Amino acid sequence: MTYYQKLEQHTKKLSRIHHLSAICSWDQAAKMPEGGNTARSEAMAELALIHHELSTAAHLAEWFEKAEAESLSAEQKISLKEMKRQWKKDNVLPAELVEQKSLTGSKCEHAWRSQRKENNWHEFSQNLEKVVQLAREEAQIRADATGLSRYNAMLDLYEPGMTCEKIDEIFGQVKTWLPSLIQEVQAQQSHDEVLTPKGPFPAEQQKTLSLDIMSKLGFDFSHGRLDVSTHPFCGGVPTDVRITTRYDEDDFTSALMGVIHETGHARYEQGLPEQWLDFPVGQARSMGIHESQSLFFEMQLSRSKPFIEILAPLAREVFSRNNDKSLSTENMVLFSTRVKPGYIRVDADEVTYPAHIILRYEIERDLIEGKIEVADIPELWDKKMTEYLGLSTKGNFTDGCMQDIHWTDGSFGYFPSYTLGAMYAAQFMAAMRREMNVDNLIRERNLQPIFNWLDRHIWKKASFLSTEDILREATGETLNPDYFKEHLVNRYLES
Amino acid sequence: MTYYQKLEQHTKKLSRIHHLSAICSWDQAAKMPEGGNTARSEAMAELALIHHELSTAAHLAEWFEKAEAESLSAEQKISLKEMKRQWKKDNVLPAELVEQKSLTGSKCEHAWRSQRKENNWHEFSQNLEKVVQLAREEAQIRADATGLSRYNAMLDLYEPGMTCEKIDEIFGQVKTWLPSLIQEVQAQQSHDEVLTPKGPFPAEQQKTLSLDIMSKLGFDFSHGRLDVSTHPFCGGVPTDVRITTRYDEDDFTSALMGVIHETGHARYEQGLPEQWLDFPVGQARSMGIHESQSLFFEMQLSRSKPFIEILAPLAREVFSRNNDKSLSTENMVLFSTRVKPGYIRVDADEVTYPAHIILRYEIERDLIEGKIEVADIPELWDKKMTEYLGLSTKGNFTDGCMQDIHWTDGSFGYFPSYTLGAMYAAQFMAAMRREMNVDNLIRERNLQPIFNWLDRHIWKKASFLSTEDILREATGETLNPDYFKEHLVNRYLES
Repeated sequence: MTYYQKLEQHTKKLSRIHHLSAICSWDQAAKMPEGGNTARSEAMAELALIHHELSTAAHLAEWFEKAEAESLSAEQKISLKEMKRQWKKDNVLPAELVEQKSLTGSKCEHAWRSQRKENNWHEFSQNLEKVVQLAREEAQIRADATGLSRYNAMLDLYEPGMTCEKIDEIFGQVKTWLPSLIQEVQAQQSHDEVLTPKGPFPAEQQKTLSLDIMSKLGFDFSHGRLDVSTHPFCGGVPTDVRITTRYDEDDFTSALMGVIHETGHARYEQGLPEQWLDFPVGQARSMGIHESQSLFFEMQLSRSKPFIEILAPLAREVFSRNNDKSLSTENMVLFSTRVKPGYIRVDADEVTYPAHIILRYEIERDLIEGKIEVADIPELWDKKMTEYLGLSTKGNFTDGCMQDIHWTDGSFGYFPSYTLGAMYAAQFMAAMRREMNVDNLIRERNLQPIFNWLDRHIWKKASFLSTEDILREATGETLNPDYFKEHLVNRYLES
Repeated sequence: MTYYQKLEQHTKKLSRIHHLSAICSWDQAAKMPEGGNTARSEAMAELALIHHELSTAAHLAEWFEKAEAESLSAEQKISLKEMKRQWKKDNVLPAELVEQKSLTGSKCEHAWRSQRKENNWHEFSQNLEKVVQLAREEAQIRADATGLSRYNAMLDLYEPGMTCEKIDEIFGQVKTWLPSLIQEVQAQQSHDEVLTPKGPFPAEQQKTLSLDIMSKLGFDFSHGRLDVSTHPFCGGVPTDVRITTRYDEDDFTSALMGVIHETGHARYEQGLPEQWLDFPVGQARSMGIHESQSLFFEMQLSRSKPFIEILAPLAREVFSRNNDKSLSTENMVLFSTRVKPGYIRVDADEVTYPAHIILRYEIERDLIEGKIEVADIPELWDKKMTEYLGLSTKGNFTDGCMQDIHWTDGSFGYFPSYTLGAMYAAQFMAAMRREMNVDNLIRERNLQPIFNWLDRHIWKKASFLSTEDILREATGETLNPDYFKEHLVNRYLES
């Protein structure tokens, strides 16, 4: 057996352990009764330990060295490179730091759940300081290992190749036009009369609608399912993708749009190249590309007028409301593209969302680089919210800097993925429109060419290409935020 | 750390791996879409391998030896003994035989699924011969390691301490009265006019009824769930018990009685002593005792007249059939205690069931001991079916010797557990009746004293006592099949 083959065998083993962990995590969120949690958490931790021991085995350094000297095909070379990237990510941190991170993060996150409700920044910030301290240590170690700056080394975990120099430039541009665009859109929309659909919308009927839309969007039910959980997610494994939602009987659009979003993630997973699924090279390229697929489905596709022409009649039918004017196509278009600055990122519309991300990015970048401290966050949050969205969060930590889970367990570097994903999605759509008449295809209920394009340019590329190369091969250029601006202007100002 | 503590830590690790395996098995049967199966099976096999490597580590022999010399509490001594029993069971077979067994068994079982439908004994028997060959090797190795005879060494896997000498005596007695009892019951029942409830009974309503009965039977929904699968089972782990059923819209009693049966298994699991759950000593004593609990719930409790007085009105209500005479208490009692010899074990009533087991036991015992060969099975099956139940299976392999899954993967020694369980259940009920008026308690809807008795005498004993000692402490004597006969006579001849 060659060393490359040994590494493949080893990586398969890790992939299989990950499979069971992913299914048990899904179960924990979607099916497990409360009383099962303690034993389950212990069992999951044990499996994580087994995974860690395997992935950090001492002999692997030698295997990689020897495999690199072997004669390999072009694909195998890329696969080896990605295996090594994964191995380095897993191995660079000392075991003690990994354990401390896990304990400190769990403690901070757990306490945050009640502290947020109590608006208790004082106690939360004490835990967060410890999390930030460890995150800075992690960033320093990763920086030393990669030659990147500290924050760039964290970014690299979620969006390999992305740097804050590039993001500063892109987000800097956005900041020049976004606040005024938001105001213009609001001014224009103030003339619209929009009806809010009134519940109850029975969960069972919402489920029927969700499953129908998933089918129309090509979700493969022989390789996945839809279930319910408190926090919607896309989990499982590519051969068995588990997406979840929650049904709000007062507002069917939240589950519907959520399901469409998760279906975008799911189709990316289901579309990854079958023969490489057990290896890093066969997995999703980055969090940003992942988000680009969910946002392509949710924002680019499903909130478009031609698609709402499909959705609205389906909703009227499933809820038996043929004469409900709030479910008319016209009203659903207005309702689905309503723009209103708000405090909460996860509730934000497509236009104001980037402001929430830019704010978080600027704060976490400076936090990791040591330019600001945890104590500075509330004031900065208030200042930036006022500047970007015209809303003050003074004294309101619950709906301000304590609203997100990401920082509680030290996931610094993740936030930019959301807006990078929105920009990639807009750029993909613009490229697709140069090749086909997307709106006509939707009107003809012929979505297959759209999915084929995504499959060919993104899903089947998996991690064989860098994010930049995926963009270049699919759209002819690297990330260009103009497409995102164009999309917003077209949809929100010129409709 | 003492060697006993090291063994506890090691055993906890195995228990946690088992936890994930149990949940993923449940998922595979109850939730997984078909396309997930290949990757899932590979992942499960990987985990089994990890479990095997850990449980057969070379240093464990020394750990056991040293732990036995340490100063331990009485409970720890029993726990150590059970850990060692488990370890020996896991270690006695050479790895090569384990692998061959697994491959040959999978192949035989897989082919059996279509061969059974095609009544293809010829091809099936060729696979079965290989399975039997390996089972004999296994039995010989286990016999050498335990000093038991070959078949007794296999029995010991499922019902520790049980021997074919004891079973021969007990089943021998049953054979003297069972065939004539069946005829007498049939003669008496021939005068009854029984209405068969007519569907459709919507699955959703059956589910409501099932959940209601599970609650009444004390199932703890904070530590378990009910779902649907093709083959009903009780799985998961004691802190999170997963039972399944399937709903036949033509016949609600099959799911209902099945759910009650699995609830018996589930309450045993949920009732095991919390602080010992990770260790063999805290687990169910044997397959026979497990079956005694499911049959106590299904046969002793739920098919009793006072319990059907609870069930029948619930059924009439949930199906909105207040005037359906087939759902009257009187008719449901007759319908639930109908006796009719048939070909299929899993469809058999309480009275004819033991005949199916005795037949299988006699064949598998002689097969493992080498007194008969696979080629002899069809003739023996036909002869014994004719003798015990008056039915010939000549040429009918599908409904004869090819109907069960057990032998296909080499699980010889399992079948007696079913009837031993029925006998234990009758003996437990007889002892319980000496302490309380069970029928009155049921009529008063006060089942708690019944559950408390089971919890005290069986569930909380886990594997701290042998099967014989559980019986002795709970009922004052070891297995006495007279209680089972008395139960059948009381219910089926003197009602």
